[in-house]
Amino acid sequence: MTHRIAILGASGYTGAELVRLIATHPDMKIVALSADRKAGMAMAEVFPFLRHLDLPRLQKIDEIDFSGIDLCFCALPHATTQVVVSALPRDLKIVDLSADFRLRDPAEYEKWYGQPHTATDLQKEAVYGLTEFYRDDIRDARLVAGTGCNAATGQYALRPLISAGVIDLDNILIDLKAGVSGAGRSLKENLLHAELSGGTHTYSMGGKHRHLGEFDQEFSKLAGRPVHIQFSPHLLPMNRGILATTYVQGDARVIHQTLTDAYATEPFLQVLPFGALPSTRDIAGSNYCHIGVIADRIAGRAVVVAVLDNLTKGSSGQAIQNANLMLGIEETAGLTLAPMFP
Amino acid sequence: MTHRIAILGASGYTGAELVRLIATHPDMKIVALSADRKAGMAMAEVFPFLRHLDLPRLQKIDEIDFSGIDLCFCALPHATTQVVVSALPRDLKIVDLSADFRLRDPAEYEKWYGQPHTATDLQKEAVYGLTEFYRDDIRDARLVAGTGCNAATGQYALRPLISAGVIDLDNILIDLKAGVSGAGRSLKENLLHAELSGGTHTYSMGGKHRHLGEFDQEFSKLAGRPVHIQFSPHLLPMNRGILATTYVQGDARVIHQTLTDAYATEPFLQVLPFGALPSTRDIAGSNYCHIGVIADRIAGRAVVVAVLDNLTKGSSGQAIQNANLMLGIEETAGLTLAPMFP
Amino acid sequence: MTHRIAILGASGYTGAELVRLIATHPDMKIVALSADRKAGMAMAEVFPFLRHLDLPRLQKIDEIDFSGIDLCFCALPHATTQVVVSALPRDLKIVDLSADFRLRDPAEYEKWYGQPHTATDLQKEAVYGLTEFYRDDIRDARLVAGTGCNAATGQYALRPLISAGVIDLDNILIDLKAGVSGAGRSLKENLLHAELSGGTHTYSMGGKHRHLGEFDQEFSKLAGRPVHIQFSPHLLPMNRGILATTYVQGDARVIHQTLTDAYATEPFLQVLPFGALPSTRDIAGSNYCHIGVIADRIAGRAVVVAVLDNLTKGSSGQAIQNANLMLGIEETAGLTLAPMFP
Amino acid sequence: MTHRIAILGASGYTGAELVRLIATHPDMKIVALSADRKAGMAMAEVFPFLRHLDLPRLQKIDEIDFSGIDLCFCALPHATTQVVVSALPRDLKIVDLSADFRLRDPAEYEKWYGQPHTATDLQKEAVYGLTEFYRDDIRDARLVAGTGCNAATGQYALRPLISAGVIDLDNILIDLKAGVSGAGRSLKENLLHAELSGGTHTYSMGGKHRHLGEFDQEFSKLAGRPVHIQFSPHLLPMNRGILATTYVQGDARVIHQTLTDAYATEPFLQVLPFGALPSTRDIAGSNYCHIGVIADRIAGRAVVVAVLDNLTKGSSGQAIQNANLMLGIEETAGLTLAPMFP
Repeated sequence: MTHRIAILGASGYTGAELVRLIATHPDMKIVALSADRKAGMAMAEVFPFLRHLDLPRLQKIDEIDFSGIDLCFCALPHATTQVVVSALPRDLKIVDLSADFRLRDPAEYEKWYGQPHTATDLQKEAVYGLTEFYRDDIRDARLVAGTGCNAATGQYALRPLISAGVIDLDNILIDLKAGVSGAGRSLKENLLHAELSGGTHTYSMGGKHRHLGEFDQEFSKLAGRPVHIQFSPHLLPMNRGILATTYVQGDARVIHQTLTDAYATEPFLQVLPFGALPSTRDIAGSNYCHIGVIADRIAGRAVVVAVLDNLTKGSSGQAIQNANLMLGIEETAGLTLAPMFP
Repeated sequence: MTHRIAILGASGYTGAELVRLIATHPDMKIVALSADRKAGMAMAEVFPFLRHLDLPRLQKIDEIDFSGIDLCFCALPHATTQVVVSALPRDLKIVDLSADFRLRDPAEYEKWYGQPHTATDLQKEAVYGLTEFYRDDIRDARLVAGTGCNAATGQYALRPLISAGVIDLDNILIDLKAGVSGAGRSLKENLLHAELSGGTHTYSMGGKHRHLGEFDQEFSKLAGRPVHIQFSPHLLPMNRGILATTYVQGDARVIHQTLTDAYATEPFLQVLPFGALPSTRDIAGSNYCHIGVIADRIAGRAVVVAVLDNLTKGSSGQAIQNANLMLGIEETAGLTLAPMFP
Repeated sequence: MTHRIAILGASGYTGAELVRLIATHPDMKIVALSADRKAGMAMAEVFPFLRHLDLPRLQKIDEIDFSGIDLCFCALPHATTQVVVSALPRDLKIVDLSADFRLRDPAEYEKWYGQPHTATDLQKEAVYGLTEFYRDDIRDARLVAGTGCNAATGQYALRPLISAGVIDLDNILIDLKAGVSGAGRSLKENLLHAELSGGTHTYSMGGKHRHLGEFDQEFSKLAGRPVHIQFSPHLLPMNRGILATTYVQGDARVIHQTLTDAYATEPFLQVLPFGALPSTRDIAGSNYCHIGVIADRIAGRAVVVAVLDNLTKGSSGQAIQNANLMLGIEETAGLTLAPMFP
Repeated sequence: MTHRIAILGASGYTGAELVRLIATHPDMKIVALSADRKAGMAMAEVFPFLRHLDLPRLQKIDEIDFSGIDLCFCALPHATTQVVVSALPRDLKIVDLSADFRLRDPAEYEKWYGQPHTATDLQKEAVYGLTEFYRDDIRDARLVAGTGCNAATGQYALRPLISAGVIDLDNILIDLKAGVSGAGRSLKENLLHAELSGGTHTYSMGGKHRHLGEFDQEFSKLAGRPVHIQFSPHLLPMNRGILATTYVQGDARVIHQTLTDAYATEPFLQVLPFGALPSTRDIAGSNYCHIGVIADRIAGRAVVVAVLDNLTKGSSGQAIQNANLMLGIEETAGLTLAPMFP
């Protein structure tokens, strides 16, 4: 059975990635695409790489007839999203890719996003979309909140370790390396090719990155007590991919075994042999996440390195994985594309 | 029905690209992989991006039992290929990706490749693998010779124009821009990141590039008289993609219409609206070829720009498209993956 | 003797490149820097790579006291430039890097830039800044108009050949590959790293690129009759550098000898041995231009390949070379920095 | 007075970088260049970007007459270097860029480099070449051992903090991001453009990187007790530059002040305002090192970020800075080139 899909905010990178993935999804068909400023345009004008597909024209959201739509992906900017989702039909399944419904606590939302939440009911209803850890809730959810791409990478490295109590909760540090597509298609000087290629720099350092809100919420919940990690993001001259170098204190072998066991049956989470570490090149364009563990020369210290593609497993692929669950489809449907290398 | 596939030379980029594409092919299953020096290794050791797949170990060619194999892709270096293919079972379907069987004339082969051909019978038997123009022959062929990736790009831009007689045959010039994966995984100083990134240079200039042998053969055959084009390749700091800027003399509108008509029903050849020109980014990782036409300010001159991915439509995608025909499968099976952008 | 220098428009790439080069110039000292919207800021805030230098703060142009200034570089957007230069003191030496004073004929200016020229007197007075060919005029000039970077590259490949009458004037084609810094620091979607890296596309094709105005003017003047070339620019995923593949009809050996002779004593124009072709990597960051010549396999056709750095020899380095002449300094002063490789 | 210079091992990147820098050095002249396998070739054949320079041909080392040479830079592979330097005239000043003389303790050398040292006398004589901290010793030295490029970066971030006792010596972690030229011009699969561009991965993780030998030696000496840091290098798709994200425990303001005071008069070490963090783009091609400090949200934790160009300040620029001291020249001579941006 083919499910009818709408994508709101189709003119950004995560919107385009949804279209790319759904193009070969066996059970989904795109019937509506929105893009506010580009309404009226063909998708092929906005993203010529999609020109071989037969897609609906871009519309304004209020022009869309949602009556025959089964599920709606919402790839809009945060804050805007709250307003839009509030106005959608109550019986529409929604997978949101913005930050609007990730945090349970309105105070935390306001702290990290600088403004009060205007749809706290929806915020309460939303299920956090880290598929492997909220699978059952997602299956029954009407509204799923996609995670931050950095937040997903760090959680895949750390959640089983926190749950199993095999690392020191007060000494967790993630040094993260992110590709530029995570910043979206926005016109900023530091995202220009001439500014970005051939070099690297940090951003949102010192505990200011908003994904810390998710880390705090999820890790504290898992641990049953407040957990505050250190998190240092770097922007790299590459388009896709996140590599999270995660520094922990604990026994590296135990850590590796804990992750191996936790992910033994997961289709997309691949734990490498002990001592092998992953590369972002090996997951580009795919829904796979590779995780490696190594011991440091200093006794009691280990490094867990996780990689995923921010646009796929970190957002649009995750969103489809969640949608598959919500629609009762095979969880991996449309998501087994191999990475592209080189 | 699932067809059983072998890939010889699986440790190079075209071999890996075949595996990537077949991974989501509905009707093919890889049952044997060869790599001479890496025999015994798992494919995931050679190409970690394929680690999620359940693949046979790499073997030496003579360890492979070809009895149950339906079709064999041969992604070996040229010259080696002649020897290997000569020794394969006579009833095995073969798609060769090397240069060994592209040229009909042994003298031309010797001229361009610097040594006599040692399997002239096979050379005679082989069908030239430019799918859209040799479809019927390919369907019935036992041995198909994949085209050069540059040769494919130029032919997609020019063949209908030569056939229709709408351009001057004595003034055809292709200025080609190629990504680095076309040079393979070989260890050469000029392919190092430190040497290649951030700059560009020409190579095989002045009529020395071997793909000229294919252009000469095919264009002369089409025209019914010798046609010798000018061909200037450039290496660009990008991994995938070829852009062929093709300079011709003729009426640009007529040229555009001729291409549009010729490719109207082709699933993978997309002619852009008149005046629009393509980008390699819009076909990366896919089997699509985009073609644009524009008039120059000088009356009677036109430019045809064609782009394709050298590893996909230029070699491994083309090979699968041909294999689909040879196996009686839907021609587009496994090949409708959307390009990856960004 | 140290000459006192002002730079108007110091917040763009050519402005920054002027500062970079003057930083080690033995006879120049920067005493004023302008940037309209960034007035009041330190240069180190706008370009942190210049933070080791002791530079004046950015000002608005009308805040600058020009009385003690010997020479002013003007790196402003075109059209704006006419207005600004008209208001500068009549006795100030000016090297302009914009397009405003490159074309002699007001009608040509209007044709290529889409608006009437508002300072036709200055336009008449300005000397075209292609140093090697206008050296004497530049020495005596008050106002020098820097050339287009693409226009400079093509002229270095072609001027001696046109003068010597060794090529067919009706069959000149430049297929040009340009790095992205030529487009400036402007916020355009197609200049983003995520859009530009890893691929290539054409721009201003079909005879629409404005530098054709310069080619037409200069080549026609040299030839003594109208010369209209074909010119096809491509944008490459690299920050600096232009490679002009110039297709001509003539004897390749004669062409090589003509260029070798013409540039024998030029400090910055280097003709490679016959058959050797240049790479943009070998001139990055420097004022050198490398030129190579090769014969095609088709008799009577030759290819001249010229490379230079658009920000250096193509604009800011050229500007300083011209300023050196105007100030009576050694022409090469401050310009002998070696290229940066890798 | 012009000093006569030899460079041994001129066909690698650090050798070429020495030539690039000396090209505009006011007091040095290159009179001999060696490259074993490329002896007899012109430097312009090996590095075309140097073709504008008048340089001696490449020789074998034993063909060089050292009698008139004032100082010799040795840019040879480690191990080879010991043998070569042992055979050089005893009165020749030598700046070595290899790893051979960096470690004082033969046992440490053997531990990190896997073989016994064969020139322990020279090892004892050599002065560690981190200019700012060994200035007086270097001035009087005959043999200076250039530091590792990663080791230099980390030490610039940390030495004053260890000396001042303002950080916890048992909790120092450097997460380092390095450009690819640090790996040299060697032909390795993972250094190919197709393998490296567009992605990132770790290397020598877990306490295996040889520069740890230098960190251990220097930090322990400074602290007066063993100090063992954690060090995790990553390879980035960029040619030049190192960014060391250094995690320490201490008061961020105190740390910033300590660094600011320590480097107040240093010409090449620039401490940014508190809270500002550097980019590798802002030092590319130069001898400058930028350092920034920020507090983490977790009380008592600070991050020090240092950037430098591995080929310049990290090796060849440092070597010239040391040579300047040894020759009694102005320390900054030839080294004030501005970085190249973009």
